[in-house]
Amino acid sequence: MNTRLFTFAGGETGVWRIVRMETVAGEPIPSAARLDIIPGPISQEPHGAKWLLRGITSNERYVVREEKDHLVAKQPGLSRPEAVCAALIPIRKNASWWGLPQDERRKVFEEQSNHVKIGLQYLPAVARRLHHCRDLGEDEPFDFLTWFEYAPSNEDAFNKLVTELRASPEWKYVDREIDIRLLREPA
Amino acid sequence: MNTRLFTFAGGETGVWRIVRMETVAGEPIPSAARLDIIPGPISQEPHGAKWLLRGITSNERYVVREEKDHLVAKQPGLSRPEAVCAALIPIRKNASWWGLPQDERRKVFEEQSNHVKIGLQYLPAVARRLHHCRDLGEDEPFDFLTWFEYAPSNEDAFNKLVTELRASPEWKYVDREIDIRLLREPA
Repeated sequence: MNTRLFTFAGGETGVWRIVRMETVAGEPIPSAARLDIIPGPISQEPHGAKWLLRGITSNERYVVREEKDHLVAKQPGLSRPEAVCAALIPIRKNASWWGLPQDERRKVFEEQSNHVKIGLQYLPAVARRLHHCRDLGEDEPFDFLTWFEYAPSNEDAFNKLVTELRASPEWKYVDREIDIRLLREPA
Repeated sequence: MNTRLFTFAGGETGVWRIVRMETVAGEPIPSAARLDIIPGPISQEPHGAKWLLRGITSNERYVVREEKDHLVAKQPGLSRPEAVCAALIPIRKNASWWGLPQDERRKVFEEQSNHVKIGLQYLPAVARRLHHCRDLGEDEPFDFLTWFEYAPSNEDAFNKLVTELRASPEWKYVDREIDIRLLREPA
């Protein structure tokens, strides 16, 4: 069985060195030097962890067939040797968002915000894995954790991507967001 | 904060007496005499529990604005004094279902199966609370737990409702289903 659950542990260990943490909206999280990504359920907290963020990959919530086919055709996998830059972006959306019926969330997500259309422009440069947190339990600090990997030469493109998304109507519903940038640099 | 997480504990305690357990599809679960419904996270397993099924209420996945407004207008709350009959129906859907993009799942759910349209015909007789399990973790035995409450005079109607849904195209994707019927009868 493929692992769907991942724990992102910010602390003193892990192959990813944290180079910047920016609080885009809402409460910050403690700063940390390194990030470890642990697949599957964890039996004990990693040594020296400042925070643990858990998320689970799941079915698509908004993407329609045509978009899915485009995404599948263009999206690269994680762990490409050249993709030594990464971003972990935990996001929480507000109660108005979650109170909207499916068709209205979809409308904001794509017809108004072009979330997929924008994302497709940055493929295959940027690899991405989306983790859901909202239904893991009642007390999760974020609704989503998105993990991105790209080569240093694509850093400007990645910055453009997040700037475009943050300017979209969908982001009016985001009430907490942290932008964590990392470099693959085994200690 | 309202509780979203619930544990359904089958065993020897709880105000609900289990009168029948039928395995509709897939593996059965052990039989039990009573059901306890525990809101919020549980710190220790209830005494004598034969099984624990956890689920979390969440945002709608398929319902559009018009349907949501009809549902909100017609659906009763739980715990009506006359609604002493209940059903707990745990369901799992197969990998083909979860691999479909959003528009195709919606099409099967409503345009082909009339899931909401059928459900609306049984309101306000039948109260319902849907709990999601699939994204609670990797090892959940079911994807959904639906809890229904109705008066004894509406039992035939409730049976008709589940028969209609089970005959719909959506149910071709259901690979595990248990139908547990209960009576509110404090010990």
